[in-house]
Amino acid sequence: MYELLKQDGRARRGVFHTVHGDIQTPVFMNVGTCAAIKGGVNTMELKTLGCQVELSNTYHLHLRPGDKLIRDMGGIRKFMNWEGPVLTDSGGFQVFSLAKLRKITEEGVRFASHIDGSRVFMGPEESMQIQSNLASTIAMAFDECIENPATRKYVKQSMERTYRWLIRCREEMDRLNADPETLNPHQMLFGINQGGTYDDLRVEHMEMIRNVNCDGFAIGGLSVGESTEDMYRIIDVVEPHMPTDKPRYLMGVGTPCNILEAVHYGIDFFDCVMPTRNARHGNFFTWKGKMNITNEKYARDARPIEEGCQCPACRNYSRSYIRHLIRAKEVVGSQLAVAHNLYFYNDLMQKIRDALDGGYFEKFYQKYRTILGERVED
Amino acid sequence: MYELLKQDGRARRGVFHTVHGDIQTPVFMNVGTCAAIKGGVNTMELKTLGCQVELSNTYHLHLRPGDKLIRDMGGIRKFMNWEGPVLTDSGGFQVFSLAKLRKITEEGVRFASHIDGSRVFMGPEESMQIQSNLASTIAMAFDECIENPATRKYVKQSMERTYRWLIRCREEMDRLNADPETLNPHQMLFGINQGGTYDDLRVEHMEMIRNVNCDGFAIGGLSVGESTEDMYRIIDVVEPHMPTDKPRYLMGVGTPCNILEAVHYGIDFFDCVMPTRNARHGNFFTWKGKMNITNEKYARDARPIEEGCQCPACRNYSRSYIRHLIRAKEVVGSQLAVAHNLYFYNDLMQKIRDALDGGYFEKFYQKYRTILGERVED
Repeated sequence: MYELLKQDGRARRGVFHTVHGDIQTPVFMNVGTCAAIKGGVNTMELKTLGCQVELSNTYHLHLRPGDKLIRDMGGIRKFMNWEGPVLTDSGGFQVFSLAKLRKITEEGVRFASHIDGSRVFMGPEESMQIQSNLASTIAMAFDECIENPATRKYVKQSMERTYRWLIRCREEMDRLNADPETLNPHQMLFGINQGGTYDDLRVEHMEMIRNVNCDGFAIGGLSVGESTEDMYRIIDVVEPHMPTDKPRYLMGVGTPCNILEAVHYGIDFFDCVMPTRNARHGNFFTWKGKMNITNEKYARDARPIEEGCQCPACRNYSRSYIRHLIRAKEVVGSQLAVAHNLYFYNDLMQKIRDALDGGYFEKFYQKYRTILGERVED
Repeated sequence: MYELLKQDGRARRGVFHTVHGDIQTPVFMNVGTCAAIKGGVNTMELKTLGCQVELSNTYHLHLRPGDKLIRDMGGIRKFMNWEGPVLTDSGGFQVFSLAKLRKITEEGVRFASHIDGSRVFMGPEESMQIQSNLASTIAMAFDECIENPATRKYVKQSMERTYRWLIRCREEMDRLNADPETLNPHQMLFGINQGGTYDDLRVEHMEMIRNVNCDGFAIGGLSVGESTEDMYRIIDVVEPHMPTDKPRYLMGVGTPCNILEAVHYGIDFFDCVMPTRNARHGNFFTWKGKMNITNEKYARDARPIEEGCQCPACRNYSRSYIRHLIRAKEVVGSQLAVAHNLYFYNDLMQKIRDALDGGYFEKFYQKYRTILGERVED
């Protein structure tokens, strides 16, 4: 259940109550696609980085180790020893971005596994069944994620099918939650808005799906080839049509600036692989902007990545040492970098919530909307 | 300064006093070749795994990031934020095992870097200078490590040169330690015994080098192609010729059984990449023997790797989860596996010391000398 605590313009400060604990929003979910944060941060460490919600993936976990195995081990949370809430992505995006030889019909999608090429079928019911086995806190609806640009005709057809799929997801999830053998009878379902970059289709689709009884709604199909201006325009256009009593989740976005901007438009939930993926290449996010640690000027720099940062990398190691580790491709380097970047993203959300609580969000937003996208100078 | 606390047969329980803290022996040094444990355990975590001494490598650090950089950053211990003692290997072994196009003369070795092919020269003086820049607690002498088998003629020639090199190492280290600009004026030097698999040459060489004023002596050139029987025979033959008032270090060895056996012969120091290298492939060491976690029978096993083990992997995660991580090549998997294996090796040494302290080492040795080499059955 979503509780709106405070509003500043369109920006919302809230709490989302779940059976696995409260989520303070706006929130950034930390991505552990295969039930582990890529780069070497385990779930014990994740707690210390300020993570509230872990995000895993239906498609990946279905293929390996298998959702039935995870069910037998007590569900995804017990499997990876994470006590807090978990959101599972539906597999829709991955089926369309990773799998090969896919064939889409009204029933669902037939595709070849990216691991061993074996043939797999996934539709709304299968996605719900897998997510029910995973027993996540929040399940995502199974949708078609269209690459941008796409023709208006295709987008319209696809979003109508995604709407019909959402109804099937809802029915299947109701059936599964009522099953006495289910691991999480309170599993929630978020619907996903699609419609490409066509404002009217986006609004039309949002108006359709909001009539389905979901626990939250996401904007999907962004950060998939469109411009940043298109992305912001769509959020701006869709947001007023989203229910105010339910959380809004902008899927797969984005840079610290993108997140700050989207909070300003009224978004509550985020996820992105950017902090982990960038970390592995030595790209760090800080309150003064971005820095790449492999730069020669950091070779003898005894300072931490960011002065005052309380992450394990900054509390214990110098830029010089971390630069060496990243260049030598030592795993400890990527581990420290991932820890810093996740800490930064989680801390960014904490500072955003503080600003909303304290009534100075607009000032905070104006100050950081440019700084966070710049290059660190010192 | 080495203090012998207790002896049980040939096995020795001692303390090695250094300016960077006492080392309780027998001890296993945890290998961080490039100033980091491979697989993702940082120096903060290393403390919690019972590690007493970290071991880094002269050859690797000279090439990257450069020993002068590390000197400028305050030495290897400050660079990697490790307060305890550090032993640096001399680079001899790596020059002979990793570098290409090497040419050996009385002066030293000219070779091509394995990173960028650039031409490098290293002799006894250069190795001491680099290790002085690294400012480790213990420096190793620069020697030639011969592959087994080798002809008697070549081994004799080589070990005589290694002896002459040791004298040059001693002189150079004395000069460096007296330099007012040196970071660690108390840097210690260990000599290295060579002689291939020829018992008489081994003894002859040991008798030569023990006259050089070293802080400890190592047996080098083992675990490089000879049989386990040859290895044990050489330790058996050389050990009585090693000074009793100085620590003895068996370089690059080995399995838990090898270590237990060598302690039984009177060895005090060990190092090996086995716990880290095996971990990355899902091979775990336990008190019931070895196990490979990728085995199908562990797919749904909710137990920890080893019941009762206090390492971070066993305290928090199941065999099922760790198996999944190793199979999915998630870094968290190798990180947990490395943590377990290092914890096991350090714990093995602790239990060996306890057995020596408690006067039941022979019983301990008889019990575990076979078990530790077996396959876990459950």
